[in-house]
Formats: sequence, C-alpha cells, structure tokens
Amino acid sequence: MNKPRLTLALLAVSALSAWTQPKLPPAASASDAYSPELLAQLQAVRDASLSSDYAWRQLAYLTENIGPRPSGSPQAQAAAEYVAAEMRKLGLDVRLEEARVSHWVRGEEKAELVEFPGQPPQVSQKIIVTALSGGSPTPADGITGDVVVVHSFNELKALGRDKVAGKIVLFNVRYDKRKAVGGFAFDAYGEAVLYRGKGGPTVADMGGIAALVRSVGSADYRLPHTGFSYPSSIPDGALVAEDADLVEHLASQGRVRMHLTLTPRHLPDTIGYNVVADLKGSEHPEQIVVVSGHLDSWDLGRGAIDDGAGVVISMAVAETLQRLHIRPRRTLRVIAWMDEENGGGGHDAYGKTHAAEMPNHIAAVESDAGAGHPLGFSLRMSAAAQASLRPLVEVLAPVGATVLRPTSVSPGSDIEPLVDAGVPGIGIIQDGRKYFDYHHTPADTLDKVDPQELRENAAAMAVMGYALAATPEPLPR
Amino acid sequence: MNKPRLTLALLAVSALSAWTQPKLPPAASASDAYSPELLAQLQAVRDASLSSDYAWRQLAYLTENIGPRPSGSPQAQAAAEYVAAEMRKLGLDVRLEEARVSHWVRGEEKAELVEFPGQPPQVSQKIIVTALSGGSPTPADGITGDVVVVHSFNELKALGRDKVAGKIVLFNVRYDKRKAVGGFAFDAYGEAVLYRGKGGPTVADMGGIAALVRSVGSADYRLPHTGFSYPSSIPDGALVAEDADLVEHLASQGRVRMHLTLTPRHLPDTIGYNVVADLKGSEHPEQIVVVSGHLDSWDLGRGAIDDGAGVVISMAVAETLQRLHIRPRRTLRVIAWMDEENGGGGHDAYGKTHAAEMPNHIAAVESDAGAGHPLGFSLRMSAAAQASLRPLVEVLAPVGATVLRPTSVSPGSDIEPLVDAGVPGIGIIQDGRKYFDYHHTPADTLDKVDPQELRENAAAMAVMGYALAATPEPLPR
Repeated sequence: MNKPRLTLALLAVSALSAWTQPKLPPAASASDAYSPELLAQLQAVRDASLSSDYAWRQLAYLTENIGPRPSGSPQAQAAAEYVAAEMRKLGLDVRLEEARVSHWVRGEEKAELVEFPGQPPQVSQKIIVTALSGGSPTPADGITGDVVVVHSFNELKALGRDKVAGKIVLFNVRYDKRKAVGGFAFDAYGEAVLYRGKGGPTVADMGGIAALVRSVGSADYRLPHTGFSYPSSIPDGALVAEDADLVEHLASQGRVRMHLTLTPRHLPDTIGYNVVADLKGSEHPEQIVVVSGHLDSWDLGRGAIDDGAGVVISMAVAETLQRLHIRPRRTLRVIAWMDEENGGGGHDAYGKTHAAEMPNHIAAVESDAGAGHPLGFSLRMSAAAQASLRPLVEVLAPVGATVLRPTSVSPGSDIEPLVDAGVPGIGIIQDGRKYFDYHHTPADTLDKVDPQELRENAAAMAVMGYALAATPEPLPR
Repeated sequence: MNKPRLTLALLAVSALSAWTQPKLPPAASASDAYSPELLAQLQAVRDASLSSDYAWRQLAYLTENIGPRPSGSPQAQAAAEYVAAEMRKLGLDVRLEEARVSHWVRGEEKAELVEFPGQPPQVSQKIIVTALSGGSPTPADGITGDVVVVHSFNELKALGRDKVAGKIVLFNVRYDKRKAVGGFAFDAYGEAVLYRGKGGPTVADMGGIAALVRSVGSADYRLPHTGFSYPSSIPDGALVAEDADLVEHLASQGRVRMHLTLTPRHLPDTIGYNVVADLKGSEHPEQIVVVSGHLDSWDLGRGAIDDGAGVVISMAVAETLQRLHIRPRRTLRVIAWMDEENGGGGHDAYGKTHAAEMPNHIAAVESDAGAGHPLGFSLRMSAAAQASLRPLVEVLAPVGATVLRPTSVSPGSDIEPLVDAGVPGIGIIQDGRKYFDYHHTPADTLDKVDPQELRENAAAMAVMGYALAATPEPLPR
C-alpha cells in the first residue's frame, strides 16, 4: 500500500489553489458554442437535476441501510452490489470490475495519561485516540511511554535520536481553520496531513515506540479523524484536537507518560469491486466520459460526505438522462470506485485493466470533496480544452457553479491513473468550509448533507458530464 | 437520589424566560446609590477582574491537571482539596464541609443494530450510546430487543402496554436549536430534558426493557450527552442525535432490533465535600453573601463550562478583593459545591448544616450556565431587592452584563435550598448559544472557554458579590 501515488494524492489537492487564472480570450456564449438542441438539453438536464431527490434517496440508502463501507468489508461489497443493481434498473450496461483492495479492521483503541503534573493520587486521565491505517498494533495490553511533543519534522530531527528513542511522539500540528474558506479547505488539510501520512515511519526511524498526530480537521467537538498513513513498524494514531493540546500543555509542565492501546488488524488484501456502469453513446460508444465518486468510506462514520455524495451524484447523471430520454453521443460511464481511502486498489486496477482504452477516454470527472455547494470545477487539461468548457459557465450560472480553475495535478485521487495517461481530468470544487469538521470522523453521516446542495452537485455533475458526452467534437487533449 | 428538588432543578431554568420586565420607577444612578468610595471600589473590582488571568489559570488546573471530577471520584476529592488550598493561600477561612454524595461509575457502553431494513448479510451497525445516571445495568453481554420510537410521553401511552412491553423505547425528542439564542437556551433544554429524566421510569412502568433518549443538546457532531435520570429498574441511555434519527428512519421502514450494553455501577453513597471559604466581613462578619459554582462534573468531558467556570470565577472574587486589599463589610463566602450533577448531595447538606443561619444569608449568587459572555443576572427576590440592585447596571455596563431579569424559581440548583429558605437568589445569565453544544459531552474541555469571556464573568460575579457584601444596608428580603 506504500504507493508513490498516494503521496501525490495526499498532496494533490493542496495544490488546487496555487493557480492564476490565465488570460483567455472572451469565451463564446453558450448559444454560440452549442446548437439550440444541445443547449436546451443541457438546461433540461440541469433543471431536472435541481428538482430531483434521486441522489438523496440513494445517499440515504448507502449511509443508513448499508452504513459504513470500509474497503474489504461486507458493507463495501453490499454497496457495490446495490449500486450495480440500481444502475441495471436504469438500463445501463453494468460490470463489477475486480480490484485487489486493502482489508484493514479497527481494533481496540484507548489511551490514558498515567503520569502527569498535578495528577491526583492513583488517577489516570483518559484521552481519545483513533488508529491510523499504517501503524502496527500494540500488544493487547498496550504500551507505556513518555510523550514528546513536536510541531514539525524539523523539530523532531533537531531533538535527535537520543531524545526520541523509546518515546511516544505527538505531532501537534494544527489544521489552520482560517484557510478553510470556500474551495480552499484543502490548503489547510495539505499542511497537516503530511504528519498523519508520514509520522509513523519517521518516528520509527528514530527509535520512537509510537507516533500520534493531532486529528487533521477543523471541528472542536473532541472528534477523532482517522485516515491513511504509510506503513510503519510502530503503532500510530490520531488524538482529538483537545487532547493533543492537553498533552502539550501538561508536557510543558513536566513528565507525561501515556498508556496506549491500538490493535488494528492488517488482513491480507482481498478482492473488491469498482462498479462500472455505461450509458452507451449513440454515435461514439467507444468514446468514454467518466463521472465518478468513491464507494468505500472510513469505518468511523457512515461515509455521507466522503464520499457517498460523489457516488450518488454520479448515479444521478445517468438517472436524469434516462428519465429525460436523452441519449449522449458518447458513452457516459458512471464509476463507483472502491478503496480510495486506504490504498487506491480500485483506481489502480482500472488504470491497468483499461490501459489500452485510455486514448478513448475523453474526460474523467470526480467528486470527492463533500457535498457542499458546488462552486465550479478544477481542470487538469490543455488550455484549448479549458477554453472549450467556458461556455458551460453560462449554463451552470443558475447552479452557482461558475469557477473554472486550472490545476497542475489530478483533481481527484481516483481519476489520477487516467490523468497520468493523458485523459483530461475534472473535479467538482465544493464549498469546503465545513468539510473538514466531519472528514474521516464518526460524524460523517447523512444529516451533514444538505438536500438542496446535493441537488446542486448533481446538476453540476450532470451538466458537465452530459456536455462532455454530447458535443459534436470531443474535448481536445 | 430521587429527590423532588431535582425535578424542580431540571425544570427551573426553563422558567427563566417566562418573565415580563416589571414597570419600575427610574433607578437611582450609581453615584446616587453608592458613596464615592464604594463606587470607586466597585469600578476597581470590575476593572481588576477584567484584566486578570487568575480564573483562567485555576480553570486550566482543574480541567487539565485534575481532569473530570464526577462526584465520588478521587478527582472530585483532589479538586476540593485543591480549591481549599488555593483559598487558604489567599488568607480565607476555609472548611471542607461533609456531604453525602452519589457515587456512580460509568461502565461499558455500546449499542448496535442487529436487524434493520436493507441490512447487508451478517452485518450489524454500530451506534453511539452513553449511559444516564438512573438506569439499571444490562447484563455484561447486553440485552437485545425490538425498538419502538416515540416523540412524547403521550405517544408512548397511546401505544399501550402491549406494544411497549419487551421493547426498547427511544424518545427521539429534538432539542430545538432555534430557541438557543442569547440567554434562552434553557427553554430548549427544559423541553427535551424531561425525557432524559423520566424516560426510564416511564418505560419501566409499561414493561419496556430499556429506555433511550436522543441526546439533549444542540451540536451535530455525533456526541453523546450524558446526565441525571431518575432511578429505574431498566437500563437507560442517550443516543447521539444522528443515531436517534438513524433508528427512527430505519424503524419507519421495518423492524429494528438493537443489542444494548450499558453497565454502570451505582456504588453506595459516599462522603464528599463542599468547599466553603470565607473572607470575613469587617463590620458584619455574621452576614453572609455567597458566590458559587459546582466543582463536580460529568465524567465524559473535563467540566470546563459545566461548571469549572462557575467555581473559578467565584474564587476570583476573593482573589481580586484580596489583591486590591478591599475588605467587604459582610462576609463574602466562596462555595464550590459538590455533587450538583447527580443528586445534589452537596447543596442538601449545606441547607441542613446551615439551616439556623439562613436569616443571616443576605444573598446567594451562582454561576452554572457556562462561561459565555455574561448578559446579566436572573433575580429571585422581592421587587424592593430588585430595585436596589438596579444602580449596579451602570457599573456593569462596560462588561455588557446589563440585564436584570426577575424569575419565580431558583436561578440555580445549588442555591435552591437557600432560596427555599427565603434567601434572595441570583444567577449569572450567560450567552447560551453554544452551551448545549458541549453540555455533558466529552467536548466540555478548557478550549471551549474564551479567556476574555471568562474575565467578563469574573467581573460580573465580583461586582455583584462585592456590592452585596459592601453596601451599608443589606439587600432587603
């Protein structure tokens, strides 16, 4: 699972905002760019999406009737079968495509401070921890060690091996909420998530006995944020933000010793499935436009914003077209990816299985940044391709999704193998102000999605997806 | 622990807003009402409080170095000894006054849906539950039953014993956030907390096997809110809001069976202590003005807003007077109450021990609604007494604590025995918009308190406390 691609995926999104809007000539108006028929279809697809509860009903089913869907779990399997069945009901051509996926199962997780300044006699203080995916388990009865608190890899290295060996290291690196404004939340995430990803191996290299990070997220509700980390020979976990500060505060006063129990199990990789559902193109069935989200979720919550929402708005594109009896010129492919969270086995398999067809992939759209109001799209493609999408802004204006933002990296981790193969990549930019309040926590549940905002996302995905599949000329490379 | 007073305490605060500002004659100005010396002292006490970090440092110690302080715990004992020592350092006359207090210890708590519509094969769905204080424990391996969802006692009664017997009953009664505006949050609390208090006994009477409530609170972070409930022969607990809605949603589709494990232990009542610290009056040492908060907390969080804040701002009144070398005419008594949360043993003991001195208690002030910006005070006293306090508004204006709101019930549960004995009662009204986000949850931690707002509360308490202890004439009854 230690894939270089994951490093990029961890970081990719942080580069989204490092952009300057290029000076482009004035765009053609939508009525110049599209035939009256196509323009009417795009508007109809938009409006039908904005008034449909299909995506919401699918999201309710995935999150509440199926529940958490970690890769390798029976729920992930049930979800794949469910999405496949729903797509077949719509008349799509559906395949469950095999992928080798991770299978990680959370164990016991607890932590307590067994020694700290001011401690009442015979009292320990419980703190809240959750395991990350790459760490090794502790023994069943846990480990105990002194805690060292640092705020960067440089600070850790400056301490030197002598002061780290035998210790539990806490990286108390804050997620900077001030950066979590519309569309830019990933900047803050990108800064802090480095420690979640590489804290374990780095501490292990210096002889530490466990690595802990401050939960990467913006909320203040003593919620743990789990997530991917690189494999290491020591346990690793995330403390809730409040308890990271508690430990730092107490450690500034004197010795802090922690008892830590984290017993996740790394089971052998197993077989999981991407759901690949085609609405065949009428003229160029061999040309493929992908709309997608990922079906797996972390186990703590119910995977509503991450990323049930991305799956159901992709499903809704097909449902809307079928309901309106609109047939795209090219094949519209709905993909529900498996194992985005913990290894990327799903998209890796797709990249390999479909390597020969990459030239026929016209574009790939992904939604994996929640279900907040869609602000627009990030675009990884040529300037000519970007320019050809600009008339869509007029169609999308009533949805409020009007930003087209170039990016130099893949706009999503699941479409990265396609982007790497030269396929134009598109990501929906959601308002991310609240996304990292809930991201990877137990609180990622259905109620965090606003039904109207979900419809807006469905409309944005449908307009983009259908335009890509319906214009006479394919998006230029 | 099934004390009638607790019913009142559960409800008392909800009556705070059922007020009409009486038509009073124009108040005397502060310079008419107070001597120049006293007015200068009140202003000095206010300004010194507003620039001191004493209360904050005490709160940090109580919450982080000592931690959660449930009644009967070693931490509660350590906290009482700590506060006593701090008050002695200030030169106060300090006693630890014995009280018979509850001793309840949380056990294992878990719940999962073992049958529900759409359930993937061999999969159960975990939900988040916390025990309330009055329920009986389940066996160690839990109980299993069908779930019935209701929204009121009337709805439960209408179902009838046949449909309730053998079932787990969930009261999914929402805390109405819209009511949680400045100073009125207790209205919403009062409506929902009835089910937390009496759900268990009511369901037990109808043959149900467990009672669950929706967590009483305003946040959406899958946080459980624990609390007091009346003793019952069946287990009782609180589901997080999201999971109460999940269960209701699934139960509307078909059968829902839950496996529930709650193993709290009701240990025998034990001895705890109210800390009673006197700054002796220079002229009337026998006349007593109480400033107070409660030292015990629930075990899930660290008791910062409920009610470490009330204790430390009371301590700060004494510290400020001593630092400024201002001696009150009457005795200023700082009380840190024990066992407010789970039985009221502390205030009961005080009421009995000091019954004969009640005529000498001039007034009792309590802060037990968090550490939000102080808006003013609720007053349980005669109209003449209320009128005599009105000039204080001018002194408090720079703090923003200018509301004087009459109430017909005790403005706090710990001063209720005093109020019942005829002592004028005063409660600080805090901005409660966020209070019930954190109330009785794991997230009641130091960071939820704003240092500036804590200083404002300390100033409000100090001005009120000192005025009551320093005016030539005592507050009229």
